Amino acid sequence: MKTRMTEALGITRPVIQAPMAFAAGGTLASAVSSAGGMGMIGGGYGDADWIDQQFGIAAGARVGCGLITWKLAEQPHVLDQVLVHDPAAVFLSFGDPAPFAPAIRDAGVPLICQVQTLRDAWRALDCGADIIVAQGADAGGHGEARGTFALVPEIADEIARQNSKVLLCAAGGITDGRGLAAALMLGADGAVIGTRFLASHEALVHPRILDRALAATGDDTLRTRVVDVVRGYDWPSRYNGRVLSNPFIQKWHQSEAALQRDAKSEAAKWAAAQNAGDPDVATAFVGEGIGLINAVQSASDILANLAGEAQECLARAVSHSER
Amino acid sequence: MKTRMTEALGITRPVIQAPMAFAAGGTLASAVSSAGGMGMIGGGYGDADWIDQQFGIAAGARVGCGLITWKLAEQPHVLDQVLVHDPAAVFLSFGDPAPFAPAIRDAGVPLICQVQTLRDAWRALDCGADIIVAQGADAGGHGEARGTFALVPEIADEIARQNSKVLLCAAGGITDGRGLAAALMLGADGAVIGTRFLASHEALVHPRILDRALAATGDDTLRTRVVDVVRGYDWPSRYNGRVLSNPFIQKWHQSEAALQRDAKSEAAKWAAAQNAGDPDVATAFVGEGIGLINAVQSASDILANLAGEAQECLARAVSHSER
Repeated sequence: MKTRMTEALGITRPVIQAPMAFAAGGTLASAVSSAGGMGMIGGGYGDADWIDQQFGIAAGARVGCGLITWKLAEQPHVLDQVLVHDPAAVFLSFGDPAPFAPAIRDAGVPLICQVQTLRDAWRALDCGADIIVAQGADAGGHGEARGTFALVPEIADEIARQNSKVLLCAAGGITDGRGLAAALMLGADGAVIGTRFLASHEALVHPRILDRALAATGDDTLRTRVVDVVRGYDWPSRYNGRVLSNPFIQKWHQSEAALQRDAKSEAAKWAAAQNAGDPDVATAFVGEGIGLINAVQSASDILANLAGEAQECLARAVSHSER
Repeated sequence: MKTRMTEALGITRPVIQAPMAFAAGGTLASAVSSAGGMGMIGGGYGDADWIDQQFGIAAGARVGCGLITWKLAEQPHVLDQVLVHDPAAVFLSFGDPAPFAPAIRDAGVPLICQVQTLRDAWRALDCGADIIVAQGADAGGHGEARGTFALVPEIADEIARQNSKVLLCAAGGITDGRGLAAALMLGADGAVIGTRFLASHEALVHPRILDRALAATGDDTLRTRVVDVVRGYDWPSRYNGRVLSNPFIQKWHQSEAALQRDAKSEAAKWAAAQNAGDPDVATAFVGEGIGLINAVQSASDILANLAGEAQECLARAVSHSER
């Protein structure tokens, strides 16, 4: 499959694997890159030793690295440590990329800015982003309120007005070839895909937590602050995270202040459940597309299916286009 | 443009105009139907005299009628009055369609059920819906939390499993040909489009309210209960409505209990602003796609542009599908 993005990045499938914090290590990232997409280490909150380790595991494959921007601002040296590995790209999301864009550009590394609003896209364009990812609320994990469907074409229009060399990816709700084909119709050059790769053999996720997610429908996810509060992560108030609901989430969702008061005992409970894979307490960051996923696959099969199904959809499109 | 839906409904463009309460009268509905789509009178809260009037205005065109289901349950006779007009379809949303499905089926009128979750789609299938509309939170007006992007293919899969004769429309964020093409890629047979038709010469909306909306981006909309509280409408708690933000909405959003206390004076203020077209108080129910709309057009131009642009997108799709 060729798009402007496959050409620009030297990949064969217009798919960037989302740099899911904790879940996307070197094994997943290298598997995705080896299968023709762009794999990403989920650098997340910037544990530099862990990032080094994962680049080591991915050695030999061209992989990028994602970082949570507001957290990077607290420890900017982590970016230098990432750039030492000559990543295929740096993927910034959730904060102002401006302080970090020059170092990334100077290193000759493509800058991917994930945005959740049109306003953020303006900022990313100002910063010289090479790729903008329009991430809708349909996505798993952190994000904001705007939906994927209208955000993508609105940012596509803005890119066309300001700098048509900038590439655009859609993110949020894209798990199969139908979604990839739809993203291209909306004006994207490719897709950023998380949840589908979370359900891969290569992702770092407890099998019991994943099994619970595979049995769920998209109705079973919600956007909440519960997981951040219980982990003690100080996310800016504009962001929350989409997770699979479970009894723990249901108990504390919209009672976050009470959770904060019980933080110590609940945090211990959560951490134990994470380790044990107790899906009634711990949960996975999954998008609404989880309802389209029923089995764990290898990253390579996921990419092959995505591309094959997208091509079928696009080929069928011609029949619709006849008057 | 041919899809299963154009064939089944005897229309030439796979577009149903959303039955926007108050805004979609007989003029808009008949203009849409005359231009090859399916026009819908926005029967909304079930003002039977108004509905009669609008069918009169649309006389000669095959138009359908939409009703808010939970409100219809309070005054079921309104359905009989709608069926007297032999509508092209009845479009039910926001409540259980089961009590009304038999009368609609017995009248030989196609039943369109708009749903916001997979669970609701199961119910609609049980009720014998002819068309299911998967409406995402990206939409303007009332709805729920799930996004259009993953809801559509998830319901498409459910329809394929249960009864593949049922047709599927996507709704929420679809305002141009890119969106229509994307909806088809996601597995829909057509699209339900509201906001784009709100910005038509034929819609019933104050020009100053509409002007404010045309200047907005998708970032400027939000889902809220403010408008229902100020109007005294007793919507079930699962639903809220996407509107264009303005100072009034910003003041009361998430302070709905306080608004309820000041209801009398604020309701008068709101009603006056509605009549005068004061966009700082009154507002339009618009979806996130408002950011893609910059001008008022005729319903017929809107449909021609939608179809033409969708066909271009679909024709270009072939180039992506080549390896």
